[in-house]
Amino acid sequence: MTHMPTTLPVSAADVDAAAAVVAPFAVRTPLLSAPVLNERIGTRVFLKPEMLQRTGSFKFRGAFNKLSSIPQDKRAGGVVAFSSGNHAQGVAAAAKILHMQATIVMPKDAPLLKRERTKSYGAEVVLYDRDREDREAIAREIAEKRGATLVKPYDDPLIIAGQGTAGREIAEDMATLGVTPDVVLAPASGGGLIAGVATAVKARFPSAEVIVAEPEAFDDHSLSLRAGKRERHQGSGRTICDALMAAIPGELTFTINSQLLSRGVVASDAEVGAAVAFAFNELKLVVEPGGAVGLAALLAGRIDTKDKTIVVVLSGGNVDADMFARLVA
Amino acid sequence: MTHMPTTLPVSAADVDAAAAVVAPFAVRTPLLSAPVLNERIGTRVFLKPEMLQRTGSFKFRGAFNKLSSIPQDKRAGGVVAFSSGNHAQGVAAAAKILHMQATIVMPKDAPLLKRERTKSYGAEVVLYDRDREDREAIAREIAEKRGATLVKPYDDPLIIAGQGTAGREIAEDMATLGVTPDVVLAPASGGGLIAGVATAVKARFPSAEVIVAEPEAFDDHSLSLRAGKRERHQGSGRTICDALMAAIPGELTFTINSQLLSRGVVASDAEVGAAVAFAFNELKLVVEPGGAVGLAALLAGRIDTKDKTIVVVLSGGNVDADMFARLVA
Repeated sequence: MTHMPTTLPVSAADVDAAAAVVAPFAVRTPLLSAPVLNERIGTRVFLKPEMLQRTGSFKFRGAFNKLSSIPQDKRAGGVVAFSSGNHAQGVAAAAKILHMQATIVMPKDAPLLKRERTKSYGAEVVLYDRDREDREAIAREIAEKRGATLVKPYDDPLIIAGQGTAGREIAEDMATLGVTPDVVLAPASGGGLIAGVATAVKARFPSAEVIVAEPEAFDDHSLSLRAGKRERHQGSGRTICDALMAAIPGELTFTINSQLLSRGVVASDAEVGAAVAFAFNELKLVVEPGGAVGLAALLAGRIDTKDKTIVVVLSGGNVDADMFARLVA
Repeated sequence: MTHMPTTLPVSAADVDAAAAVVAPFAVRTPLLSAPVLNERIGTRVFLKPEMLQRTGSFKFRGAFNKLSSIPQDKRAGGVVAFSSGNHAQGVAAAAKILHMQATIVMPKDAPLLKRERTKSYGAEVVLYDRDREDREAIAREIAEKRGATLVKPYDDPLIIAGQGTAGREIAEDMATLGVTPDVVLAPASGGGLIAGVATAVKARFPSAEVIVAEPEAFDDHSLSLRAGKRERHQGSGRTICDALMAAIPGELTFTINSQLLSRGVVASDAEVGAAVAFAFNELKLVVEPGGAVGLAALLAGRIDTKDKTIVVVLSGGNVDADMFARLVA
């Protein structure tokens, strides 16, 4: 869709405002191109490598934007967040910079690396059982008890606008190159990243198709876009994309994504593993499984690439050494 | 030293000319910064990530510049090169673009990945025994028999000028940022990369100290700089830095390096392994051991960093998956 209703919860101006807040602390990640990928896909592909962002994923952008908005008189209570790992690190790192206490509610089966890295930023980590406990309830209880501000992982306009700064940089860099993106591909769990990216990219390039990439069977955004309303995915069990396991799109994110996104594509765990290995062998980038799902869909031929300029967001690189070794072996 | 004699075999103008030749085909690698590295070192550090270059190392730059200079009537004979792996890939990839046949003489113990990647560019690979055979003699024989042009790995002004384009990009990007580099750190085997980088960087920033990083016991550049003449290193056996095993600096490269470099630093294999792991865990970049030796020296505290702006060249990322898994475990 090429129109952009002014009633959306986040505007391009909100992303501009977020960029001013996060720029002094976030890494301005480059827009990369790799001849080997262009040759493999047969068209021009650009990569937005958010594993190079502070904390190893895009999540710092939204977290820092949100935490910066907390009034001084509320900061003493600290912040609390629930996350499988990347939002955890983003919130913890932002809290450290802003001298706030952070408590993070993480699933017991989150990758060890993500738990350890979250603690390394000075956050307190509270573990819960993904199958038996309600992380939101645990986080809310902590928030009430301590007077802490709950920092949602995606369904917050300030979080979405913060993640959108990655899209704003893509749009700026494409404009500098004089190239119009035809397709922008990004992963989604709750949908905050792609909502922000779509907001920023479509403001500058209304003709760009923004496509959401998801793990097979965890395709709630794809289902919801087709249905025109928020739908749960049917995925049970696990995917190697630990960062992309949200069951249903966010309310705010879906309000945006249902207007701005074209459709969804999926990749199997095997295809994601092959993309992680491709990134290691050919791109020399460390991508975590969830961060590679867009690249996986592209490499698997799920995107019509003929004569198109494609941008792929690689959203993070926080992968345990043993999982990484298995995938690249 | 801050003077730059006009008698050096490669000038900044030669690097400018090389940049015009290679720019349409080489990746213009970004200058990266990482808050986690700045915090760890306590100063401002920039990284030049040459693993993002075509073929996974800086070597494509020099090879493409050299091969482009071969007259049309000599191109039918093809090119021949000897290399432990990265120069091999650079020459093979440049030859493919220029529609020339490439034959590469590689040691039998070169990493499998480097052999396979060299073949993937269409080159013929001839293996030799590092301890018993003379690779230069083998390459010269092939050159004579086929009328091929021998492409030396470093001791050629066009190769040095090509590698220098990495330094030229560093200088351009630092100038754009308005930052003056105090120290530029790069690995050396034969010394072509650092000679080219020093030529370009010191032309723009004469006060910058350019420091060569080498594996412990393979420190022929450090020894030679101290002695004021080319000296062999005393290293026997192996280092994990397979790319950095040349026994003595090149003649042309040392003529340049003895004028432009300040000194050398070394890192042990254990320190190099730690740097590869740091790059994986914190920078999310795939660096091969030889490419990480400058970072290793920096992380090991071998550089006086107080109030200094440091640039580290990460020269390549062609590392076998099993070696990488061992180093990051």
